[in-house]
Amino acid sequence: MANRIRLAVDAMSGDQGAEVCVAATLAAVNENPSISALLVGRTSVLEPLLGTPHPRIRIVDAPEVVTMDEPPARALRQKKASSMAVALQLVRSGEADACVSAGNTGALMMMGRSILKMYPGIERPAIVKLIPSLHNRCYVLDLGANVDTSAEHLFQFALMGSLMVAAIDGKAAPRVALLNVGEEEVKGSEQVRLAAHSLAACEALNYIGYVEGNDLFQDVADVVVCDGFVGNIALKTGEGVALMVMEVIEQAFQRTAMSRVLGVIARPFLNRLLRQIDPRRHNGASLLGLQGVVVKSHGNADARAFRAALRQAAAEVRMRVPQKINARLDELAF
Amino acid sequence: MANRIRLAVDAMSGDQGAEVCVAATLAAVNENPSISALLVGRTSVLEPLLGTPHPRIRIVDAPEVVTMDEPPARALRQKKASSMAVALQLVRSGEADACVSAGNTGALMMMGRSILKMYPGIERPAIVKLIPSLHNRCYVLDLGANVDTSAEHLFQFALMGSLMVAAIDGKAAPRVALLNVGEEEVKGSEQVRLAAHSLAACEALNYIGYVEGNDLFQDVADVVVCDGFVGNIALKTGEGVALMVMEVIEQAFQRTAMSRVLGVIARPFLNRLLRQIDPRRHNGASLLGLQGVVVKSHGNADARAFRAALRQAAAEVRMRVPQKINARLDELAF
Repeated sequence: MANRIRLAVDAMSGDQGAEVCVAATLAAVNENPSISALLVGRTSVLEPLLGTPHPRIRIVDAPEVVTMDEPPARALRQKKASSMAVALQLVRSGEADACVSAGNTGALMMMGRSILKMYPGIERPAIVKLIPSLHNRCYVLDLGANVDTSAEHLFQFALMGSLMVAAIDGKAAPRVALLNVGEEEVKGSEQVRLAAHSLAACEALNYIGYVEGNDLFQDVADVVVCDGFVGNIALKTGEGVALMVMEVIEQAFQRTAMSRVLGVIARPFLNRLLRQIDPRRHNGASLLGLQGVVVKSHGNADARAFRAALRQAAAEVRMRVPQKINARLDELAF
Repeated sequence: MANRIRLAVDAMSGDQGAEVCVAATLAAVNENPSISALLVGRTSVLEPLLGTPHPRIRIVDAPEVVTMDEPPARALRQKKASSMAVALQLVRSGEADACVSAGNTGALMMMGRSILKMYPGIERPAIVKLIPSLHNRCYVLDLGANVDTSAEHLFQFALMGSLMVAAIDGKAAPRVALLNVGEEEVKGSEQVRLAAHSLAACEALNYIGYVEGNDLFQDVADVVVCDGFVGNIALKTGEGVALMVMEVIEQAFQRTAMSRVLGVIARPFLNRLLRQIDPRRHNGASLLGLQGVVVKSHGNADARAFRAALRQAAAEVRMRVPQKINARLDELAF
């Protein structure tokens, strides 16, 4: 039991609802014997979906649900008995090591902040994700749709991102960059330029300067920082292109009888490589800044995608990401 | 001579310099007998590159060059004899119908504004581009790296974009959308939300609401408006993904002897479709808002890419885009 990773799953979350969450949880628990799960939601809904009791899955009743379009502040005030709030409380109380939800992002951020609290010196959580790429592992934050990010927030995001990548990928001095519209010093908004000054002056960070959108895929930086509006739009644009190209390939192999035959032979080659950049296989973004592991799944995730988010939460627990970030922030006395 | 399209080419522009500009101009003029060109730059450089005189190409001497890293305001003040300024002057004087440059974007915008002037009621030029896509023709603006775009500017961009698409694609009521981080009314920055109100209230526009990054490729809107920082990063991120995927495919067909054989047969199928979304083949962005056609090529364009920008300028001249926009703005009394 010592190494068990205990995941609190907001099982009522996501566009597909409890069915997907339960199926994904079963799959994740079955594929990894060190994972156990607390399925949080309405017992009357979850029990039939779970079927036979599982030795490493327990249902925790939560009568309410935060809806996707609910204003976060209202959810925070009125939905204390929701599956989302109860799942976060389980992390807070130490009964779970991580919370995974496919629910309302704004509510998850606001509740996470209220229930789990922040790292010392960090003012707001950022959403961070590994960008699907062929050559490199590049994390981008913030993807959380924060629209009024100050230079100080960008600095804090850079610091957290660097510490997270150091914890997960074991890199001693991750390359940290700011996303901008050019590499010249004079470009970008005032916040970005101010943040660049603070980052360049910070000895705890390996700040390498500005990068542009295409650099995300070229092993230029390990951590790329931007405001949440820009990050969210860049991420979704990139995902849109990737899905469109996969469709192109699909079509190419269905045009003629000849191309269909070719497809049968050639597609396994292509698919193996395309998997690496398929956004549907890279589901799960971390809410960085909270005292605990919280992973957000896409609202429209299917069971395979939701399982990817569960795996990611388990990996962060195993790598002791929050403990390592806390320790390092203490050392740096931020 | 009546239907001749006269292009003023800033032949000293771009990372590759005059060689690429001259080769592309020759190709564009040779492939389309209605195009003639004024090659603007140092005669001593251009004459040898052009070689035999061409009946539809004339060199216009301009002794100076705007460098890529030159501050735009300084270029405007000090480089009145530059190839960029002279090319724009040729449009202003009516000796040319359009200007094409691969030079310093900021300088081109500032000089364009000063030399050609703006449409009535439009405060700043926006850079607009057709996003490479399979299913649709979606124009995005601003891509010009303007970072302090007000709601009023976003409104003006939407109006110009709609009029341009009406002029080029012949759509009576192009679908206009704002790029945002979600489709809900409450999301996004204050400027975006204010612009949404003005757009919804404008009867001259077919405003359809907010779209997200992935919608750019799904035939949801004909014109998508955003500030230049967001647009620039979204465009470059999308291009980065597209190039990465093409590389994946390249690699897939080179892994083994078997896959190389397959590649010989399968690649023509794929390439035909991939060409549609290859960013290198979609070079050329229009500076919208100026009284005249000005097309900006990627700085690193090769001759084929630069020729694409020349073709685009010729198409805008042929479709009489500035005349149509002016007439419509007059009607609307903006």
